[in-house]
Amino acid sequence: MKLCRIGEAGQERPALVDADGRLRDLSAHIADLDGAAIGPEGLARLAAIDVDSLPVVEGPVRYGPPVTGTRQFVAIGLNYADHAAESNLPIPAEPVVFNKWVSCIQGPNDPVIVPRDSLKTDWEVELGVIIGSAAHNVSEADALSHVAGYCVINDVSERAWQTERGATWDKGKGFPTFGPVGPWLVTSDEVGDPQALSMWLDVNGERKQDGSTKTMIFTVEQIVAYVSQFMTLLPGDIITTGTPPGVGLGQKPEPWYLKVGDVVALGIEKLGEQQQSFIAAN
Amino acid sequence: MKLCRIGEAGQERPALVDADGRLRDLSAHIADLDGAAIGPEGLARLAAIDVDSLPVVEGPVRYGPPVTGTRQFVAIGLNYADHAAESNLPIPAEPVVFNKWVSCIQGPNDPVIVPRDSLKTDWEVELGVIIGSAAHNVSEADALSHVAGYCVINDVSERAWQTERGATWDKGKGFPTFGPVGPWLVTSDEVGDPQALSMWLDVNGERKQDGSTKTMIFTVEQIVAYVSQFMTLLPGDIITTGTPPGVGLGQKPEPWYLKVGDVVALGIEKLGEQQQSFIAAN
Repeated sequence: MKLCRIGEAGQERPALVDADGRLRDLSAHIADLDGAAIGPEGLARLAAIDVDSLPVVEGPVRYGPPVTGTRQFVAIGLNYADHAAESNLPIPAEPVVFNKWVSCIQGPNDPVIVPRDSLKTDWEVELGVIIGSAAHNVSEADALSHVAGYCVINDVSERAWQTERGATWDKGKGFPTFGPVGPWLVTSDEVGDPQALSMWLDVNGERKQDGSTKTMIFTVEQIVAYVSQFMTLLPGDIITTGTPPGVGLGQKPEPWYLKVGDVVALGIEKLGEQQQSFIAAN
Repeated sequence: MKLCRIGEAGQERPALVDADGRLRDLSAHIADLDGAAIGPEGLARLAAIDVDSLPVVEGPVRYGPPVTGTRQFVAIGLNYADHAAESNLPIPAEPVVFNKWVSCIQGPNDPVIVPRDSLKTDWEVELGVIIGSAAHNVSEADALSHVAGYCVINDVSERAWQTERGATWDKGKGFPTFGPVGPWLVTSDEVGDPQALSMWLDVNGERKQDGSTKTMIFTVEQIVAYVSQFMTLLPGDIITTGTPPGVGLGQKPEPWYLKVGDVVALGIEKLGEQQQSFIAAN
């Protein structure tokens, strides 16, 4: 299934994408797509619905993030060997874990703010993992059973705030609008192997990132098991799993960052596409 | 007002502490103490209730965290000059910001787990700031108007996971049970100056930390304004503001950490006390 949430921000309703690519309204069956709705039982209930019975949604829609009520937005750094190299950082011996504040989460095509005093706003296409059931100290073998599905994420970053303001990365990753998620939560059964998905990102129509999840250093099952040693992952939590080469920080001959007016488009095989206009702060 | 949540974990009901120190049940007036209930209007509604009309709660109770639905648990590091010195780290030029995963939040007297492979589980008595209204890019002058009140927090940490596992501190701060919060949310009007509160922490009856919020490097209003540059603080969010000297990492002649069977008690002037037994993982 491809699940999504459509409508104005804060008033989204649940929907799914049918086999013909049409949106179908799920409001009559569930109130919203929150953590409780995307557990194994919740997904089984949704899968049992006769799709033809659902009202078709016509016309252009705004997509919200495909899950609501996310309480933890976990991020993995330097998880592609070539990206670590372009960042002039060694390949990590174990996953680098950091945080994106959940207040940065927004729809996949909502505009992204370039903060007023930002010099280094950067892009990162990433595979997002959406948790369906609580996970603490789970094994790698069991890890994927806690995953409801996958999505596209742009892990927008302010590099100066991330690395030049002391001690942790958390200052540069969670500015409002820095977490476009979606358009869809594509369930695990429909995605198949999460380590075989091509991914790309364009800035103003020019290809900047062109990679595949097959070159991830730590796989999704390794990441879920690893992170669960240090915390309890909750239903509706999101893990964004790192980015392939080609971010602004890695441009040659010198780094190149986003400015007001730039347009970023990105996508991952099977998971859909996003497009964001970068705008000025109010 | 001293607001709290009492009852079994996950089934707490709202209450307040009256002028005689008795618990009074607030269930007839609000469903729970979440972010929406502790905004300026919500607190004004609670303050208008005739306390004598509220049922007295008798007998021993379990306290939950005094606010529920917290979406962001922000932490400030090295915010007392003497603690930075005992950690062999320079006094920061600007606040050090990190994250505690919200899944670590628990009641003030619930047992704390020493993780199975932990060697460096440590304590930190801290002043907690509970946000009452959303704050983004607020000025220092306006910052305290976004604060609903204050509470006691033990910022439990696994030092090896925090500093010896690569890149960020977030691995060592959010293990399940590492966030005892409460017993009360004491509203700002009742606390007065947040920079004049004595604080203490005992391990097995021996005083380890004995400080005051007056020696904080960055004040509460500076912290709220600073953090709001990088994120949007939401109602119900908690900021824990750093610890005075005397943590396990700073013990002389050598660091000394918590083991299964240890008991930690801590408190802050006007904000109440906590006590936790440190227990083995299942």
